[in-house]
Order: sequence, then structure tokens, then C-alpha cells
Amino acid sequence: MVRALNFSAGPAALPLPVLEKAQKEFVNYQGTGMSIMEMSHRGKHYDAVHSGAKARLKNLMNVPDTHEILFLQGGASLQFSMVPINFLKKNETAGYILTGSWSEKALKEAEKIGKTKVIASSKESLYRSIPSRSEWGDEKDLAYLHITSNNTIYGTQWHEFPDTNVPLVADMSSDILSRPVDTGKFGLIYAGAQKNLGPSGVTVIIANKQWLSQSTNSLSKFLDYNTHASADSLYNTPPTFAIYMLGLVLEWAEEQGGTEGLERKNKEKSALLYDSIESSEGFYRGHALNGSGSHMNVTFTLPDQDLEKDFLAKASEHGFIGLNGHRSIGGCRASIYNAVPYEACEKLAEFMNSYRKNHSARSFTFQ
Amino acid sequence: MVRALNFSAGPAALPLPVLEKAQKEFVNYQGTGMSIMEMSHRGKHYDAVHSGAKARLKNLMNVPDTHEILFLQGGASLQFSMVPINFLKKNETAGYILTGSWSEKALKEAEKIGKTKVIASSKESLYRSIPSRSEWGDEKDLAYLHITSNNTIYGTQWHEFPDTNVPLVADMSSDILSRPVDTGKFGLIYAGAQKNLGPSGVTVIIANKQWLSQSTNSLSKFLDYNTHASADSLYNTPPTFAIYMLGLVLEWAEEQGGTEGLERKNKEKSALLYDSIESSEGFYRGHALNGSGSHMNVTFTLPDQDLEKDFLAKASEHGFIGLNGHRSIGGCRASIYNAVPYEACEKLAEFMNSYRKNHSARSFTFQ
Repeated sequence: MVRALNFSAGPAALPLPVLEKAQKEFVNYQGTGMSIMEMSHRGKHYDAVHSGAKARLKNLMNVPDTHEILFLQGGASLQFSMVPINFLKKNETAGYILTGSWSEKALKEAEKIGKTKVIASSKESLYRSIPSRSEWGDEKDLAYLHITSNNTIYGTQWHEFPDTNVPLVADMSSDILSRPVDTGKFGLIYAGAQKNLGPSGVTVIIANKQWLSQSTNSLSKFLDYNTHASADSLYNTPPTFAIYMLGLVLEWAEEQGGTEGLERKNKEKSALLYDSIESSEGFYRGHALNGSGSHMNVTFTLPDQDLEKDFLAKASEHGFIGLNGHRSIGGCRASIYNAVPYEACEKLAEFMNSYRKNHSARSFTFQ
Repeated sequence: MVRALNFSAGPAALPLPVLEKAQKEFVNYQGTGMSIMEMSHRGKHYDAVHSGAKARLKNLMNVPDTHEILFLQGGASLQFSMVPINFLKKNETAGYILTGSWSEKALKEAEKIGKTKVIASSKESLYRSIPSRSEWGDEKDLAYLHITSNNTIYGTQWHEFPDTNVPLVADMSSDILSRPVDTGKFGLIYAGAQKNLGPSGVTVIIANKQWLSQSTNSLSKFLDYNTHASADSLYNTPPTFAIYMLGLVLEWAEEQGGTEGLERKNKEKSALLYDSIESSEGFYRGHALNGSGSHMNVTFTLPDQDLEKDFLAKASEHGFIGLNGHRSIGGCRASIYNAVPYEACEKLAEFMNSYRKNHSARSFTFQ
């Protein structure tokens, strides 16, 4: 088998050894004569998978004992509602920092629940950067402050997380586990798994227990974080296979040197692509401004849309998958999550360089 | 490999050919060099999986064009809340028929949203039966009437669905696709996949489009059925692998002769176990009363708890998995969903018969 050069934005590439291990034991898990998918979520085999994944994540992300790890469903989209349903009380205001479409969606759902305030936004400059602290409005007295740690569509990323006196909530769907994070400083982190953690269908929550206990949700048992916290994410049947895959990805992440090792590799990978952009003499233009560029999604445009179309078509012929920009803004995007190999990025950088040279030469000829 | 004799209540047995097919193409889906899990949910390969599963379900369950099929997340537990959030308006009352713990849970969530009324209940007789129509209270003018089509814990099942002038909502998590159903008569059907449809992590909804359009939810975009209906269940990233597995299970169901073929087999399977109970001269006692017994979960007790414990231990030694009754009521339960083979039921019936004979003989000897 030739592995695809997979730069999809999510669901995205998974580590090959993880896929191979899961394939091997897919029908007959540990000699039980059953698939892990066929087992009770309250039995000993699944229990080891469930608690194992939790323990590995705790260790890899250095989750302090003050915080709880939950495995839920519904993706970030359900979290957009669950966060305010649980934590935005009457007469309180939740703050949102807008750094892209996903932040906007999170804000919109909070507006349905209670009062909100935009503390900072880079929307007017086309979300090319993360607003610096000096651009923030007043964030004290907020119920919480919500940020999106990495912006897949625009290719920007928070490179440092702010200190603040209010509970900090982060949608880390697209860069969780890509670098060391001071998990303890967050009130709540949420992340759909389908970029860095595993297949789609499981959502990871890391939340401060003290804060969780202050939830005032009375709307729905399922939508109450405490329901899941007190049941160790076994209140109802969890997405067992997705959590099993998550556990295997976490095991692989340990073998990569944990978040430090992964961050080093991710920076090496993104440097290959940013170098191709920066050395292209304006042929490729990065969407993100210097200092805000993401190590997970490298976004760029070409001189015009015809060239972009041609570039994407040729890239596709060369086996590169998923390089189209998000349908909302167009352009090109290479998503280089943890499981995308360095070699694939090298090939893409080479392709970009050679396409640029061929094109420049040709356009020169035809001038 | 020796296949386990898997009688788990859910997650439950899956068809072996489905598991084998998924294993084969797990790492390299249709020669793409990628797993189906690694692909964009907006790409052509996944699109074929998604629309294929929907088309097969429509065909197998005879879903009329008046109805929409959705693939959501969160299991029946989230539906307990979503149904009233969408359809229980102020000044309206929702009716619930209680036939077990899951009905009670559904009612409890509706009570948080609006006014409710118990139209019938078999709780006082330990949920041994489905209330007959003559026992119902007045159901006209309800916002909807909610039933649980099969009760896994008590082993009872609605064998006919009532005609009613209000929208009928059914939790079919534990018997969907086990028999032909007049889908068109329901306002909304919901089912977690992990019993008859596939792995846990995907929830199937079949709903009347006209009724959906009357939803008044303004609380959350994700919790609005119309969000998912208008986006063909691609509003946010769906649980792609679970839906892929669902598609394979549906393909297998077609090969079994569809819902007619499956119903015939399920009745043959349950007959084996009910015969063992009925011919045991009171050694095994079925929990369900005659006429209400489920073809999905056969529940029974032994003369005393010590014997039950011994029976379950010996059954386990003989390779039978998952025969313990639900932790809330104890006893024994054999879950014989679609994918549990006839041969496994035969072996269990033989084991039950031989255990009974051995025990009767022994207890006679020691008297």
C-alpha cells in the first residue's frame, strides 16, 4: 500500500501504526472472540480501555488533580451550547475573543443563553492574527472568557495563553496535544477528537472540578457536565470504539516524546511550508500575519484564482489530498496535524517550490 | 478464532461478515491509501458511505418521503432532552407511557422542559407487561405521546403500535430493524445504534418533516433537529466511522431478507429461550408476562439468588457472555439482537436445559 499524502482538515490523518494495531485486533480483541465494539461499556476489557485513555491523557497533558477529564459526544458544536448552558447565569456576562468562524459560532450559541461581550476580535483584519492583550476590552467580572486556540480556516494560533482572573475556556479542537499546555490555568478545555486525537465521534473535556460544581444547568441531565463527571463518562453508553482509538493515538503520542516531542516535530513540519511561502517572492502569500501563523494549518493563496485552481488540480494529480481552503474563504490550506509525517510535508514543500519555478518560468516565457 | 457467545445488552454482537469486511479495508479504504476514518466528511468517498447508509435505511425500514433520516450523536439519552426541547411548547402537555426505566428517564427530562402527563404505566406490576389500550388515560391534545418500543431491562416489547391522533414518538434503541414497522405513523423514532445497528456513537432519527418544521427550539443550533435535517446530518463533523459501520450492518440486514427475514429469525431465536423457560416447570421464571415478552431481551430468574449466581458463573465458564440482568434488577437476561446467531441461542437453550436437569437431580439427591 502507498500511504496517501493526507493534508485533510479533519477528519484527518491518523498514525499508521495505530491503524495497523486496531486492524489486527479488530475482529478478535485480545483473544476474546469479540471486537472491542461488541463489548459492554461496563465490562473489564472496555474498562481498561476507558481508564487507560484517561490516564494517558492526564499524563501527556499534565492534567492536575484539580481537573476532570470527560469523554463526551457531539463535537465542539455541542460544546458551544453546553458551556453557556452550564456556566452563563442570569445577570452574568460571558466574554468571547473572536479569531475566526468557529469563535463566532461559539459566541452565537452563547447569545441564545445569556449576555455576552466581545472582548477582542481580529475580524476586521480578516482574522489574520490573534488580538494582542493591549487590544482587549475589560474582561474582569466575566462568567468566563472563551477563546479558540487554533483557527483551522485562517491558519492562526494562540502561541501563548493569557493569564486572566476569570475562568478561561478554550476550544482546542484543532491543536490539542500538539504542544505542551499549562492545563491547570483553564476553567475548561474542549476538543473534538478528529484532528489530533482520533476518529470523529468523541469529544474530550478537561475541566476544573471546582468550577464544574458551580454549574447551574437544570435543563437536561445529559447537558450537565456533572452528570458525566460523577459517572466517569459512563452515564450513558460512550462511543467505545472512538475512545479505544483515542487510547491508541495517545499511546503513539507517548512514543513521539509526548507534547514536547510532538511540538518539535510540528514546528519542523510547519517551517518547511512557511519557508516555501516566504522564499517564493510573493508567489505564495500566507494568510496569517507573522507571529500568528499556525503550526497545524498553513493557509496561503496564489497570485490569482485560476492559478490556485491549477495548483490544486496538479497537487491532486501528484497525490496530495485535502489542500483546498475551507469553502468559506477559498485559497489553499495544508493541515499538518500530529499524525501527518514530516516526509509528507517535505514532499509538499518540494511540490510547492517546483510548481512555483515552473510557473514563474512559463509566465516569463509568455510575457 | 472461536467467536464468543455474546449476549451483551449493548454494545452488542455485530455480524461477523461486517467485522471482517471492515477489518479488511480498515487501513486502506478502496485503495485510497487512507482509512475511511481519515477522510473528510465532505469528500466523495465518505459522501457515498453517508448517503448509502441513509438510502439503505430508507429502503429497509420503508421510510416514506414524508420522513427525514438523521444521523446524530449522544444516544437516546440526549434524545430524552431533544424531543421536548423541540416539541414541548409552553401551555402544551407531553404524554408518556411508562414501560421501564428508560421511559422513566425520558419522562424526567421532559419534566424539566414543560408539562407532562403519564398516560399509562406498568410500573406497579414491575413492568412485566405493556399497558393495553383500555388502561390508557386520555391522550388527545397532547404535544406528543412517547413510548419505548422495547424494554431491555424488563424484557418486554410493544408487539403492536397504537394508532393515535397526536404525534407518536418512540425510543426504538433496542429493537429498531428487528421487524417490519409502519414508520410513517410515527412523528419521530430515535435509536442509539449499539444494539441492532452498529457500534455506539451514532443515533438514528426518523422524523416526519412536517412535524420537524414546527419545532420551536431557540436554545441551541445543535439541539435543533432542523439544523441537521437541512444539512443532511453534515452540519458538524459526524461520527464517520460509526456511520460507515452502520452502512455495512444495513447491507448485511438486506442479505438477511430485510426486516421480514430478521423478524422471522428473531422469533425463532427467542422461541428457543422462551421454550426452555416454559418447559422448566417453574425452575426458570420469565419476568415478562405472556404476550409482552420481548424478542430482543429474554429476562428470567432462578428459584433463588444463590442458584442464579451459580448459573451465571457456570454459564460464564461455558463461554456465555453478558447474561447478567441489568444491575438495577438482577436476575438473568439474554440479549439476542439481530446479529446474535441462531446457533448461539441454541447453545444457550441447551445449556439452560442441562443446567436445570443437573440441578433438579442434585437437589433431589441432597434432599
